[in-house]
Amino acid sequence: MARAGRRPGQTESRQRILVAARGLFGRKGYDGATIRAIAADAGVNPALVHHFFGTKEQVFIAALNIPVNPASLVPRIVDGPREEVGQRIVRLILEVWRNPETRQAFLALLRSVTSHDAAVRMLRQFVERAMLERLADALDVPRLRLSTAAAQVIGLALVRFVIGVDPLATADEEDIVELVAPVIQYYIDGGWPVS
Amino acid sequence: MARAGRRPGQTESRQRILVAARGLFGRKGYDGATIRAIAADAGVNPALVHHFFGTKEQVFIAALNIPVNPASLVPRIVDGPREEVGQRIVRLILEVWRNPETRQAFLALLRSVTSHDAAVRMLRQFVERAMLERLADALDVPRLRLSTAAAQVIGLALVRFVIGVDPLATADEEDIVELVAPVIQYYIDGGWPVS
Repeated sequence: MARAGRRPGQTESRQRILVAARGLFGRKGYDGATIRAIAADAGVNPALVHHFFGTKEQVFIAALNIPVNPASLVPRIVDGPREEVGQRIVRLILEVWRNPETRQAFLALLRSVTSHDAAVRMLRQFVERAMLERLADALDVPRLRLSTAAAQVIGLALVRFVIGVDPLATADEEDIVELVAPVIQYYIDGGWPVS
Repeated sequence: MARAGRRPGQTESRQRILVAARGLFGRKGYDGATIRAIAADAGVNPALVHHFFGTKEQVFIAALNIPVNPASLVPRIVDGPREEVGQRIVRLILEVWRNPETRQAFLALLRSVTSHDAAVRMLRQFVERAMLERLADALDVPRLRLSTAAAQVIGLALVRFVIGVDPLATADEEDIVELVAPVIQYYIDGGWPVS
Protein backbone atom coordinates (compact mmCIF):
# COMPACT_ATOMS: atom_id res chain seq x y z
CA MET A 1 0.00 0.00 0.00
CA ALA A 2 1.50 3.37 -1.00
CA ARG A 3 1.85 5.90 1.80
CA ALA A 4 1.84 9.68 1.74
CA GLY A 5 4.88 11.71 2.78
CA ARG A 6 8.61 11.21 2.14
CA ARG A 7 9.94 7.89 0.91
CA PRO A 8 11.43 5.90 3.78
CA GLY A 9 15.21 5.37 3.88
CA GLN A 10 16.80 1.98 3.33
CA THR A 11 17.20 1.09 6.99
CA GLU A 12 13.64 2.13 7.75
CA SER A 13 12.26 0.13 4.78
CA ARG A 14 14.22 -2.93 5.84
CA GLN A 15 12.84 -2.64 9.36
CA ARG A 16 9.30 -2.23 8.10
CA ILE A 17 9.65 -5.32 5.93
CA LEU A 18 10.89 -7.39 8.89
CA VAL A 19 8.04 -6.20 11.13
CA ALA A 20 5.48 -6.91 8.40
CA ALA A 21 7.04 -10.34 7.78
CA ARG A 22 6.89 -11.33 11.46
CA GLY A 23 3.22 -10.33 11.57
CA LEU A 24 2.32 -12.10 8.36
CA PHE A 25 4.24 -15.32 9.04
CA GLY A 26 2.53 -15.40 12.44
CA ARG A 27 -0.96 -14.95 11.00
CA LYS A 28 -0.64 -16.99 7.80
CA GLY A 29 2.14 -19.45 8.60
CA TYR A 30 5.26 -19.91 6.50
CA ASP A 31 3.41 -21.40 3.56
CA GLY A 32 0.57 -18.86 3.58
CA ALA A 33 2.68 -15.69 3.64
CA THR A 34 3.91 -14.31 0.31
CA ILE A 35 6.54 -11.71 -0.52
CA ARG A 36 3.83 -9.73 -2.27
CA ALA A 37 1.69 -9.61 0.90
CA ILE A 38 4.69 -8.76 3.09
CA ALA A 39 5.61 -5.92 0.75
CA ALA A 40 2.03 -4.62 0.80
CA ASP A 41 1.92 -4.69 4.60
CA ALA A 42 5.25 -2.87 4.77
CA GLY A 43 4.17 -0.31 2.18
CA VAL A 44 7.05 -1.08 -0.19
CA ASN A 45 7.47 -2.58 -3.63
CA PRO A 46 7.88 -6.40 -3.71
CA ALA A 47 11.07 -5.87 -5.75
CA LEU A 48 12.57 -4.13 -2.72
CA VAL A 49 11.92 -7.20 -0.56
CA HIS A 50 13.71 -9.36 -3.14
CA HIS A 51 16.49 -6.79 -3.34
CA PHE A 52 17.08 -6.79 0.42
CA PHE A 53 16.60 -10.46 1.20
CA GLY A 54 16.33 -12.63 -1.90
CA THR A 55 13.84 -15.44 -1.30
CA LYS A 56 10.93 -15.83 1.12
CA GLU A 57 13.10 -18.30 3.02
CA GLN A 58 15.69 -15.60 3.60
CA VAL A 59 13.06 -13.08 4.69
CA PHE A 60 11.90 -15.64 7.27
CA ILE A 61 15.46 -16.27 8.52
CA ALA A 62 16.04 -12.53 8.97
CA ALA A 63 12.60 -11.80 10.48
CA LEU A 64 12.76 -14.61 13.04
CA ASN A 65 16.45 -14.27 13.73
CA ILE A 66 17.06 -17.91 12.77
CA PRO A 67 20.68 -18.44 13.73
CA VAL A 68 21.69 -20.71 10.84
CA ASN A 69 20.76 -20.84 7.19
CA PRO A 70 19.39 -24.31 6.36
CA ALA A 71 20.30 -23.89 2.70
CA SER A 72 23.96 -23.75 3.71
CA LEU A 73 23.69 -26.74 6.07
CA VAL A 74 22.11 -29.18 3.63
CA PRO A 75 25.21 -29.57 1.41
CA ARG A 76 27.38 -30.12 4.48
CA ILE A 77 25.19 -33.12 5.31
CA VAL A 78 24.66 -34.44 1.81
CA ASP A 79 28.17 -34.05 0.33
CA GLY A 80 30.55 -36.91 1.15
CA PRO A 81 30.37 -40.69 1.59
CA ARG A 82 26.86 -41.97 2.18
CA GLU A 83 27.96 -44.22 5.04
CA GLU A 84 29.18 -41.16 6.96
CA VAL A 85 25.97 -39.11 6.80
CA GLY A 86 25.20 -39.97 10.43
CA GLN A 87 28.60 -38.76 11.53
CA ARG A 88 28.30 -35.52 9.56
CA ILE A 89 24.87 -34.77 11.02
CA VAL A 90 25.97 -35.31 14.64
CA ARG A 91 29.15 -33.24 14.15
CA LEU A 92 27.13 -30.44 12.55
CA ILE A 93 24.55 -30.19 15.34
CA LEU A 94 27.28 -30.18 18.00
CA GLU A 95 29.19 -27.48 16.13
CA VAL A 96 26.14 -25.27 15.60
CA TRP A 97 24.98 -25.49 19.24
CA ARG A 98 28.49 -25.05 20.65
CA ASN A 99 28.35 -21.39 19.64
CA PRO A 100 26.75 -19.40 22.51
CA GLU A 101 25.09 -16.81 20.25
CA THR A 102 23.50 -19.45 18.06
CA ARG A 103 22.36 -21.24 21.19
CA GLN A 104 20.69 -18.13 22.58
CA ALA A 105 18.84 -17.61 19.33
CA PHE A 106 17.65 -21.24 19.29
CA LEU A 107 16.51 -20.89 22.89
CA ALA A 108 14.47 -17.81 22.02
CA LEU A 109 12.82 -19.83 19.22
CA LEU A 110 12.11 -22.71 21.57
CA ARG A 111 10.53 -20.31 24.06
CA SER A 112 8.22 -18.86 21.43
CA VAL A 113 7.34 -22.34 20.19
CA THR A 114 6.31 -23.45 23.68
CA SER A 115 4.33 -20.23 24.19
CA HIS A 116 2.45 -19.45 20.97
CA ASP A 117 0.55 -21.66 18.57
CA ALA A 118 1.27 -19.25 15.72
CA ALA A 119 5.01 -19.57 16.34
CA VAL A 120 4.70 -23.34 16.31
CA ARG A 121 2.93 -23.39 12.97
CA MET A 122 5.26 -21.10 11.11
CA LEU A 123 8.37 -22.74 12.49
CA ARG A 124 7.07 -26.22 11.70
CA GLN A 125 6.34 -25.31 8.10
CA PHE A 126 9.73 -23.67 7.76
CA VAL A 127 11.54 -26.72 9.17
CA GLU A 128 9.60 -28.97 6.79
CA ARG A 129 10.23 -26.89 3.65
CA ALA A 130 13.73 -25.61 4.29
CA MET A 131 15.29 -28.64 5.89
CA LEU A 132 13.38 -31.92 5.86
CA GLU A 133 12.07 -31.87 2.29
CA ARG A 134 15.47 -30.97 0.91
CA LEU A 135 17.23 -33.65 2.89
CA ALA A 136 14.60 -36.29 2.15
CA ASP A 137 14.98 -35.56 -1.57
CA ALA A 138 18.76 -35.31 -1.60
CA LEU A 139 19.27 -38.46 0.48
CA ASP A 140 16.23 -40.37 -0.77
CA VAL A 141 15.11 -41.23 2.78
CA PRO A 142 11.49 -41.73 3.90
CA ARG A 143 10.25 -38.67 5.82
CA LEU A 144 9.30 -40.61 8.94
CA ARG A 145 12.86 -41.85 9.33
CA LEU A 146 14.28 -38.41 8.66
CA SER A 147 12.03 -36.65 11.16
CA THR A 148 12.85 -39.25 13.81
CA ALA A 149 16.56 -38.68 13.16
CA ALA A 150 15.86 -34.96 13.57
CA ALA A 151 14.14 -35.75 16.88
CA GLN A 152 17.31 -37.50 18.07
CA VAL A 153 19.63 -34.59 17.32
CA ILE A 154 17.19 -31.97 18.63
CA GLY A 155 16.83 -33.94 21.87
CA LEU A 156 20.61 -34.29 22.03
CA ALA A 157 21.05 -30.51 21.77
CA LEU A 158 18.33 -29.93 24.37
CA VAL A 159 19.72 -32.36 26.95
CA ARG A 160 23.40 -31.44 26.38
CA PHE A 161 23.17 -27.67 25.96
CA VAL A 162 19.89 -26.51 27.55
CA ILE A 163 18.99 -28.84 30.42
CA GLY A 164 22.65 -29.79 30.79
CA VAL A 165 22.16 -33.30 32.13
CA ASP A 166 25.45 -35.00 32.95
CA PRO A 167 27.37 -36.84 31.63
CA LEU A 168 25.92 -35.84 28.27
CA ALA A 169 26.53 -32.16 29.06
CA THR A 170 30.26 -32.61 29.63
CA ALA A 171 31.08 -35.62 27.42
CA ASP A 172 33.72 -35.31 24.67
CA GLU A 173 32.28 -34.50 21.28
CA GLU A 174 34.07 -37.53 19.82
CA ASP A 175 32.43 -39.88 22.34
CA ILE A 176 29.02 -38.45 21.44
CA VAL A 177 29.71 -38.82 17.72
CA GLU A 178 30.75 -42.43 18.25
CA LEU A 179 27.61 -43.19 20.23
CA VAL A 180 24.97 -41.32 18.21
CA ALA A 181 26.25 -41.38 14.60
CA PRO A 182 25.30 -45.09 14.12
CA VAL A 183 21.75 -44.25 15.25
CA ILE A 184 21.38 -41.49 12.68
CA GLN A 185 22.91 -43.77 10.08
CA TYR A 186 20.34 -46.46 11.00
CA TYR A 187 17.49 -44.00 10.46
CA ILE A 188 18.95 -42.90 7.13
CA ASP A 189 19.83 -46.37 5.82
CA GLY A 190 16.85 -48.24 7.18
CA GLY A 191 18.89 -50.99 8.82
CA TRP A 192 21.60 -51.79 11.34
CA PRO A 193 25.23 -51.71 10.41
CA VAL A 194 26.52 -55.17 9.50
CA SER A 195 29.37 -55.94 11.89
CA MET B 1 9.75 -19.34 61.76
CA ALA B 2 6.81 -19.18 64.19
CA ARG B 3 4.25 -16.50 63.44
CA ALA B 4 1.90 -14.59 65.72
CA GLY B 5 -1.87 -14.87 65.41
CA ARG B 6 -4.17 -17.83 64.69
CA ARG B 7 -2.73 -21.09 63.38
CA PRO B 8 -3.23 -21.39 59.63
CA GLY B 9 -5.73 -23.95 58.31
CA GLN B 10 -4.66 -27.05 56.40
CA THR B 11 -5.26 -25.60 52.94
CA GLU B 12 -3.42 -22.44 53.82
CA SER B 13 -0.47 -24.33 55.30
CA ARG B 14 -0.26 -26.54 52.24
CA GLN B 15 -0.23 -23.49 49.99
CA ARG B 16 2.45 -21.80 52.06
CA ILE B 17 4.62 -24.91 51.88
CA LEU B 18 4.29 -25.03 48.08
CA VAL B 19 5.15 -21.35 47.69
CA ALA B 20 8.14 -21.72 50.02
CA ALA B 21 9.25 -24.85 48.15
CA ARG B 22 9.14 -23.15 44.75
CA GLY B 23 11.23 -20.27 46.11
CA LEU B 24 13.75 -22.51 47.80
CA PHE B 25 14.17 -24.99 44.96
CA GLY B 26 14.68 -21.98 42.67
CA ARG B 27 17.35 -20.42 44.89
CA LYS B 28 19.15 -23.56 46.11
CA GLY B 29 18.43 -26.12 43.40
CA TYR B 30 16.87 -29.51 44.00
CA ASP B 31 19.86 -30.86 45.88
CA GLY B 32 20.38 -27.76 48.02
CA ALA B 33 16.83 -27.36 49.30
CA THR B 34 15.84 -29.34 52.40
CA ILE B 35 12.44 -30.09 53.94
CA ARG B 36 13.64 -28.36 57.10
CA ALA B 37 14.43 -25.14 55.21
CA ILE B 38 11.15 -25.28 53.27
CA ALA B 39 9.22 -25.71 56.52
CA ALA B 40 11.09 -22.78 58.11
CA ASP B 41 10.33 -20.53 55.13
CA ALA B 42 6.66 -21.57 55.25
CA GLY B 43 6.49 -21.04 59.02
CA VAL B 44 5.37 -24.62 59.72
CA ASN B 45 6.79 -27.68 61.44
CA PRO B 46 8.88 -29.99 59.19
CA ALA B 47 6.64 -32.86 60.30
CA LEU B 48 3.74 -31.14 58.60
CA VAL B 49 5.64 -31.08 55.29
CA HIS B 50 6.24 -34.82 55.63
CA HIS B 51 2.63 -35.33 56.60
CA PHE B 52 1.29 -33.50 53.54
CA PHE B 53 3.77 -34.67 50.93
CA GLY B 54 6.05 -37.46 52.13
CA THR B 55 9.52 -37.03 50.64
CA LYS B 56 11.37 -34.02 49.21
CA GLU B 57 10.83 -35.58 45.80
CA GLN B 58 7.08 -35.42 46.29
CA VAL B 59 7.23 -31.82 47.53
CA PHE B 60 9.09 -30.96 44.32
CA ILE B 61 6.52 -32.76 42.14
CA ALA B 62 3.66 -30.88 43.80
CA ALA B 63 5.40 -27.49 43.88
CA LEU B 64 6.41 -27.58 40.22
CA ASN B 65 3.30 -29.30 39.00
CA ILE B 66 5.33 -32.15 37.49
CA PRO B 67 2.73 -34.13 35.58
CA VAL B 68 4.07 -37.61 36.28
CA ASN B 69 5.72 -39.23 39.24
CA PRO B 70 9.08 -40.69 38.19
CA ALA B 71 9.02 -43.16 41.06
CA SER B 72 5.97 -44.79 39.50
CA LEU B 73 7.46 -44.82 35.98
CA VAL B 74 10.74 -46.52 36.84
CA PRO B 75 9.20 -49.97 37.58
CA ARG B 76 7.20 -49.79 34.36
CA ILE B 77 10.49 -49.51 32.50
CA VAL B 78 12.53 -51.94 34.57
CA ASP B 79 10.02 -54.77 35.10
CA GLY B 80 9.82 -57.25 32.22
CA PRO B 81 12.21 -58.85 29.72
CA ARG B 82 15.48 -57.01 29.36
CA GLU B 83 15.38 -57.21 25.56
CA GLU B 84 12.11 -55.25 25.56
CA VAL B 85 13.28 -52.27 27.65
CA GLY B 86 13.53 -50.13 24.51
CA GLN B 87 9.97 -50.95 23.56
CA ARG B 88 8.65 -50.23 27.05
CA ILE B 89 10.39 -46.84 27.18
CA VAL B 90 9.05 -45.72 23.79
CA ARG B 91 5.52 -46.88 24.61
CA LEU B 92 5.66 -45.11 27.97
CA ILE B 93 6.76 -41.75 26.57
CA LEU B 94 4.08 -41.88 23.86
CA GLU B 95 1.43 -42.75 26.44
CA VAL B 96 2.46 -39.99 28.85
CA TRP B 97 2.59 -37.28 26.18
CA ARG B 98 -0.63 -38.40 24.50
CA ASN B 99 -2.56 -36.97 27.46
CA PRO B 100 -3.29 -33.28 26.76
CA GLU B 101 -3.12 -32.20 30.41
CA THR B 102 0.22 -33.88 30.96
CA ARG B 103 1.44 -32.28 27.77
CA GLN B 104 0.42 -28.79 28.89
CA ALA B 105 2.27 -29.28 32.16
CA PHE B 106 5.41 -30.46 30.36
CA LEU B 107 5.19 -27.46 28.03
CA ALA B 108 5.03 -25.10 30.99
CA LEU B 109 8.16 -26.77 32.39
CA LEU B 110 9.93 -26.47 29.05
CA ARG B 111 9.01 -22.78 28.89
CA SER B 112 10.47 -22.11 32.31
CA VAL B 113 13.59 -24.11 31.48
CA THR B 114 14.21 -22.02 28.36
CA SER B 115 13.58 -18.80 30.30
CA HIS B 116 15.26 -19.10 33.71
CA ASP B 117 18.62 -20.49 34.72
CA ALA B 118 17.27 -21.34 38.17
CA ALA B 119 14.52 -23.47 36.62
CA VAL B 120 17.09 -25.27 34.52
CA ARG B 121 19.25 -26.12 37.51
CA MET B 122 16.51 -27.47 39.75
CA LEU B 123 14.89 -29.46 36.97
CA ARG B 124 18.22 -30.92 35.86
CA GLN B 125 19.05 -32.09 39.38
CA PHE B 126 15.57 -33.54 39.77
CA VAL B 127 15.79 -35.45 36.47
CA GLU B 128 19.19 -36.81 37.48
CA ARG B 129 18.16 -37.92 40.97
CA ALA B 130 14.60 -39.07 40.40
CA MET B 131 14.94 -40.69 37.01
CA LEU B 132 18.42 -41.25 35.58
CA GLU B 133 20.23 -42.48 38.69
CA ARG B 134 17.45 -44.93 39.49
CA LEU B 135 17.32 -46.27 35.96
CA ALA B 136 21.10 -46.45 35.62
CA ASP B 137 21.25 -48.48 38.84
CA ALA B 138 18.28 -50.71 38.10
CA LEU B 139 19.36 -51.46 34.53
CA ASP B 140 23.11 -51.29 35.11
CA VAL B 141 23.65 -48.99 32.13
CA PRO B 142 26.39 -46.33 31.83
CA ARG B 143 24.97 -42.87 32.42
CA LEU B 144 26.15 -41.46 29.09
CA ARG B 145 24.16 -44.09 27.22
CA LEU B 146 21.13 -43.56 29.40
CA SER B 147 21.12 -39.78 29.02
CA THR B 148 21.49 -40.13 25.24
CA ALA B 149 18.51 -42.49 25.20
CA ALA B 150 16.63 -39.87 27.22
CA ALA B 151 17.63 -37.29 24.61
CA GLN B 152 16.06 -39.48 21.90
CA VAL B 153 12.70 -39.83 23.63
CA ILE B 154 12.58 -36.18 24.73
CA GLY B 155 13.31 -35.12 21.14
CA LEU B 156 10.66 -37.54 19.92
CA ALA B 157 8.05 -35.98 22.22
CA LEU B 158 9.09 -32.48 21.19
CA VAL B 159 8.96 -33.10 17.44
CA ARG B 160 5.78 -35.23 17.54
CA PHE B 161 3.71 -33.36 20.12
CA VAL B 162 5.06 -29.80 20.35
CA ILE B 163 6.49 -28.79 16.97
CA GLY B 164 4.26 -31.34 15.26
CA VAL B 165 6.48 -32.10 12.28
CA ASP B 166 4.87 -34.55 9.88
CA PRO B 167 4.90 -37.47 9.35
CA LEU B 168 6.17 -38.00 12.91
CA ALA B 169 3.24 -36.00 14.31
CA THR B 170 0.61 -38.22 12.71
CA ALA B 171 2.38 -41.60 12.48
CA ASP B 172 0.88 -44.68 14.15
CA GLU B 173 2.26 -45.36 17.60
CA GLU B 174 3.16 -48.88 16.53
CA ASP B 175 5.24 -47.63 13.61
CA ILE B 176 7.11 -45.29 15.94
CA VAL B 177 7.71 -48.08 18.45
CA GLU B 178 9.04 -50.32 15.68
CA LEU B 179 11.39 -47.59 14.45
CA VAL B 180 12.67 -46.15 17.74
CA ALA B 181 12.63 -49.08 20.21
CA PRO B 182 15.75 -50.71 18.63
CA VAL B 183 17.61 -47.41 19.08
CA ILE B 184 16.78 -47.22 22.79
CA GLN B 185 17.68 -50.90 23.12
CA TYR B 186 21.04 -50.17 21.44
CA TYR B 187 21.77 -47.43 23.97
CA ILE B 188 20.80 -49.71 26.86
CA ASP B 189 22.61 -52.83 25.63
CA GLY B 190 25.66 -51.15 24.19
CA GLY B 191 25.46 -52.93 20.83
CA TRP B 192 23.35 -53.54 17.75
CA PRO B 193 20.76 -56.28 17.67
CA VAL B 194 22.11 -59.42 16.06
CA SER B 195 19.87 -60.18 13.11
